[in-house]
Amino acid sequence: MAIIVQKFGGSSLADTAKVMAVARRVVRTVQEGHEVVVVVSAQGKTTDELIEQAHAVSPNPPKRELDMLLATGEQVSIALLAMAIDALGQRVISLTGAQGGIMTDTQHTKARIRLVDGMRIRTELAKGQVVIVAGFQGMTSTNDITTLGRGGSDTTAVAVAAALGASACEIFTDVDGVYSADPRLVPDARKLEQVDYGEMLELASLGAMILQPRAVEVAAIYGVPIHVRSSFSNDLGTMIREVKEVEKEISVTGVASDENCAKITLVGIPTDVSVLYNVFASLALEGVNVDMIVQAGTATPTADLTFTVTREELDTALTVIGKARGEQTWDIVCDENVAKVSIVGAGMMTNPGVAAKMFEALNEENVPVFVVSTSEIKVSCLVPRSRYQEAVRACHKKFELSSAN
Amino acid sequence: MAIIVQKFGGSSLADTAKVMAVARRVVRTVQEGHEVVVVVSAQGKTTDELIEQAHAVSPNPPKRELDMLLATGEQVSIALLAMAIDALGQRVISLTGAQGGIMTDTQHTKARIRLVDGMRIRTELAKGQVVIVAGFQGMTSTNDITTLGRGGSDTTAVAVAAALGASACEIFTDVDGVYSADPRLVPDARKLEQVDYGEMLELASLGAMILQPRAVEVAAIYGVPIHVRSSFSNDLGTMIREVKEVEKEISVTGVASDENCAKITLVGIPTDVSVLYNVFASLALEGVNVDMIVQAGTATPTADLTFTVTREELDTALTVIGKARGEQTWDIVCDENVAKVSIVGAGMMTNPGVAAKMFEALNEENVPVFVVSTSEIKVSCLVPRSRYQEAVRACHKKFELSSAN
Repeated sequence: MAIIVQKFGGSSLADTAKVMAVARRVVRTVQEGHEVVVVVSAQGKTTDELIEQAHAVSPNPPKRELDMLLATGEQVSIALLAMAIDALGQRVISLTGAQGGIMTDTQHTKARIRLVDGMRIRTELAKGQVVIVAGFQGMTSTNDITTLGRGGSDTTAVAVAAALGASACEIFTDVDGVYSADPRLVPDARKLEQVDYGEMLELASLGAMILQPRAVEVAAIYGVPIHVRSSFSNDLGTMIREVKEVEKEISVTGVASDENCAKITLVGIPTDVSVLYNVFASLALEGVNVDMIVQAGTATPTADLTFTVTREELDTALTVIGKARGEQTWDIVCDENVAKVSIVGAGMMTNPGVAAKMFEALNEENVPVFVVSTSEIKVSCLVPRSRYQEAVRACHKKFELSSAN
Repeated sequence: MAIIVQKFGGSSLADTAKVMAVARRVVRTVQEGHEVVVVVSAQGKTTDELIEQAHAVSPNPPKRELDMLLATGEQVSIALLAMAIDALGQRVISLTGAQGGIMTDTQHTKARIRLVDGMRIRTELAKGQVVIVAGFQGMTSTNDITTLGRGGSDTTAVAVAAALGASACEIFTDVDGVYSADPRLVPDARKLEQVDYGEMLELASLGAMILQPRAVEVAAIYGVPIHVRSSFSNDLGTMIREVKEVEKEISVTGVASDENCAKITLVGIPTDVSVLYNVFASLALEGVNVDMIVQAGTATPTADLTFTVTREELDTALTVIGKARGEQTWDIVCDENVAKVSIVGAGMMTNPGVAAKMFEALNEENVPVFVVSTSEIKVSCLVPRSRYQEAVRACHKKFELSSAN
């Protein structure tokens, strides 16, 4: 019998009626002849409410205790869903992340899964039970509770699927698949039937937050096919899997955007690499994620270095960099009003005109570009936040990605 | 340095301000030179709200899943209290029941502590940290979460104190000690300075629900002194400890009452012991607690057997007994409108006139008595519920227990 992992997010479990609907869907999957493992997030806005409670008690709660608190959110979800499934006459058991063998490192609030010990899950499946595992949480080797950060339940689902050798990992969400651009910005955006892991990774990292990038990474490493589909219908969604070279669509697959960006420029730093090391090591130590690092190389002994962080982490980043600077004389400049627009496509590297075509699209709309960064399968441009929607539409149109084509 | 265990109930932690107040109290105890372990319940009405959520999803939720759900209540408390204590600059760590080494049997929703493995708590104390342990919950040997039933946090606190060899276990509550009768019924009831374990056990079992009886049992076995005191003042409360024979007060210590009783009578059962065995074995199997078992011995081949159960368990008890009766011909009669009034005192057994004096007091008030049962340190009478307050006052007066004496 094939094992299927199904992941349901917080909005799919927001109230009693929705919990019951998820329970029926799970039982239907069992009746279709599958062994089912379910991974769930905390209900609705629970996580945000818990964070609020924490901040009412302490301005700066210890991260270990924050994890202790947040982990209760998924524990409530797994228990309620187990009760709902039991009430339908299906044998079921719920497991916390720790009980489910989700072992992580010790970086509280942003832990990474190191290992999934699937023994308990397998034992319970063998008894003919549906197994519900709390997403987003795990346990360190010293028995402490950790959480994986926003969207971590996706990663739990994929990691569990990998550990069990599941035939698929279904991610149920409030959209019905992955689109060629955000349908709220581009009404004629096209639903993609399949997306390569690499493309999805870029899409995810670039703001199309249907899936946590780490989840896609793990899926790619273990070859777990992910099926992104709607909680509210039975239609097929988008398959994320390894797409063979010959199948790859030519050039651009989609346009992604991310308005949760802030730009930091270090002006006049010595080209000596010690500053770079110092700044980025300090940021890493504080867990600040950095993106789009660009340094324009010049012949002078100083240079300007630009990179982006998320808006929430801007203050932390500025404090950390200020400390790292110490007595040195270079300047720190930042701009909160930026957004990132990217085109993504696995076939892009063989098509050198793609970047030029993107710049053409932006130029036609007079959208200024502050920073450009490229990888084998994407080109990203940092633009003024006030213009990013036009930029997305212009690119989507230029690359003829709409469903009409 | 002496270890002190402090237990705070749900009403002491009901909101942010109260959590902060508890945090300050704990830090003060540390500053007085103690190593402190704190045991807490779920905040305010959390447990009731969680049970409501469960019943919204399933009419009859599996007990294992109910425990999974309920355990989140204390987990929220320990995390918030840890944050509040940390914000005061005191090092602190929170532990779930499982992490705190609270090992139980597998009887979900009513589990009993089998063992406290104090290793983790000791390790954290040795680092100079306050250790906060979730009350009411534990873990089975198969790594499943259990809860101990209502009031279970008291038992956790005493068991932890016993395992650590703590110098005292302080139970903070909304009353300032143990009284000679319920002060709401008897305004001039006297606060007792000290109570013997045995007396407290009878008082607790008989409705003075300041402490869970199981907690008193464990304290008696391990000789842990319990200090019952107010969350809202620094006054000393009541010490519960082994009171030496010579110190024992003559005769009656207090009057206890319990209106959560229902009476069941099996009419005309054969005196053959098989019925007794059958009925009580079936009730035990369903976890129904039975009290005040009385069978009037007669020379006839049939007899009437009377006993009490809690009102919540009456329906279950009647169903169980009905099944156990099968095709036999005896009758089942029940009465929900009863209450139990008891006098308790360690010196009672050496004072044979005590029961007579109690009956005299009840007789003077014309309170009928349905059932009498006695032990070495208590006499209990089952009376009409509508009359039990008068009965308590009459006994309290007859034995001259008021603070004026």
